[in-house]
Amino acid sequence: MAFESRIKVRFGDEDHAQIVYYPRFFHFFHCAFEDFFDEQGFRYRECLDVDRVGWPAVHAEADFVQPVRFGEVITVALIISKLGTKSATFDYEITNEEGKRACTGQVVVACISMDTYRGVPIPDKYRALFQKHLET
Amino acid sequence: MAFESRIKVRFGDEDHAQIVYYPRFFHFFHCAFEDFFDEQGFRYRECLDVDRVGWPAVHAEADFVQPVRFGEVITVALIISKLGTKSATFDYEITNEEGKRACTGQVVVACISMDTYRGVPIPDKYRALFQKHLET
Amino acid sequence: MAFESRIKVRFGDEDHAQIVYYPRFFHFFHCAFEDFFDEQGFRYRECLDVDRVGWPAVHAEADFVQPVRFGEVITVALIISKLGTKSATFDYEITNEEGKRACTGQVVVACISMDTYRGVPIPDKYRALFQKHLET
Amino acid sequence: MAFESRIKVRFGDEDHAQIVYYPRFFHFFHCAFEDFFDEQGFRYRECLDVDRVGWPAVHAEADFVQPVRFGEVITVALIISKLGTKSATFDYEITNEEGKRACTGQVVVACISMDTYRGVPIPDKYRALFQKHLET
Repeated sequence: MAFESRIKVRFGDEDHAQIVYYPRFFHFFHCAFEDFFDEQGFRYRECLDVDRVGWPAVHAEADFVQPVRFGEVITVALIISKLGTKSATFDYEITNEEGKRACTGQVVVACISMDTYRGVPIPDKYRALFQKHLET
Repeated sequence: MAFESRIKVRFGDEDHAQIVYYPRFFHFFHCAFEDFFDEQGFRYRECLDVDRVGWPAVHAEADFVQPVRFGEVITVALIISKLGTKSATFDYEITNEEGKRACTGQVVVACISMDTYRGVPIPDKYRALFQKHLET
Repeated sequence: MAFESRIKVRFGDEDHAQIVYYPRFFHFFHCAFEDFFDEQGFRYRECLDVDRVGWPAVHAEADFVQPVRFGEVITVALIISKLGTKSATFDYEITNEEGKRACTGQVVVACISMDTYRGVPIPDKYRALFQKHLET
Repeated sequence: MAFESRIKVRFGDEDHAQIVYYPRFFHFFHCAFEDFFDEQGFRYRECLDVDRVGWPAVHAEADFVQPVRFGEVITVALIISKLGTKSATFDYEITNEEGKRACTGQVVVACISMDTYRGVPIPDKYRALFQKHLET
């Protein structure tokens, strides 16, 4: 089951070409990733600072299908396409205000200890959260 | 022959985890892309505003090998791995201050008219520039 | 009567010191400024692109009272403290999630034609909007 | 004696109005502030992480005189106009590529311990650095 987040595209998200500066799409992915925790009973900040578990990206990619413009409220849907012991793959799809697919992408995150910066097995409570959104 | 650009990583490029926020790596790629024009006899701004030729990303990806920290001067090397009629593929490699590979990536850009936002053949002068940096 | 906007502070809004990078507060001011139009019957984008009226900042200032951290939903309240013929002064107050004042600021915007980039009198419909939020 | 830093304005620094998004000017101030340490025998990162001394802004302001456009290399000059026991006032002036004054500003920073986040007297070695650039 996909998790969805809605994000308003801002004036400053555009670049000189008057469309969203493409690195911002990866920022939108990350916003949805934060909301994924925050809106399902966890606080992403506590995950990092209290549980001392971090999720650095090891790979990220995106295809840009359609330009997105400021003022639009986009929908960022995410689903987990692969769940490993110490990593997970998040698939993203951004839909613009008219309901057209604007961008798809994928981010592989490692699960690390914020104390050692080394890979650790995904803790059970987060694994359970991820499994609810595992692609079937 | 690779083109190289040196970029200083800034205090504000880091995120809460005290390493570079990963979407910023795509920004670093774009900075090198701008310098690629600017430092080889073209001005990127004029390419867009005078020649009316734009280069939106249609695909972007990166692998994050090693964290990068603020204060470092990184080297962004780019080479063109594929040169089509209306698109080009730029390969990037970011090296940190110690000379270690921190990030590799690839961005496919389309060549468009800034008036119609439609694909157009890469103009000869830019094709010649790209060919000088085509991977052999 | 103040206009209020709620904004979620993001992971990437923090800097190396693990608090919001201070230039981001001015971005938050601008987000509220955009919402001010969008949520009251105008679209900020149309103001710029259709009405060809822009609002560049000519002066901006802020006092940072309390750090803001990512994950918080802040409230940005704005009120217009001065309404001139061709300019307006917006006063901002940011409240953190606990209801404490985190930042206050002021931005003076000029009203310009997007065609000539010169100052023009504030059009009546926007003047009427501004007057509803004029400090009394 | 003013300290000067040169910064290249980037494609993504512009907003929908095709001029630099005004909060970026405060970022440019901060870049010069970082260079001020880094290029005079200190590393700003070590100041924070090793010396455990931080410099949060408590007040910031700017006047925007002239638009700045991407592709330009701007000069950011800074001078210290006031040096207190636990705070300092940095005055900034940004000059565009044509040598015209584009923006002036002022940022008051507090000197804090990164361990307690409380104000501390400016350590001697930084005070000596600041005094070299104190306005006379």
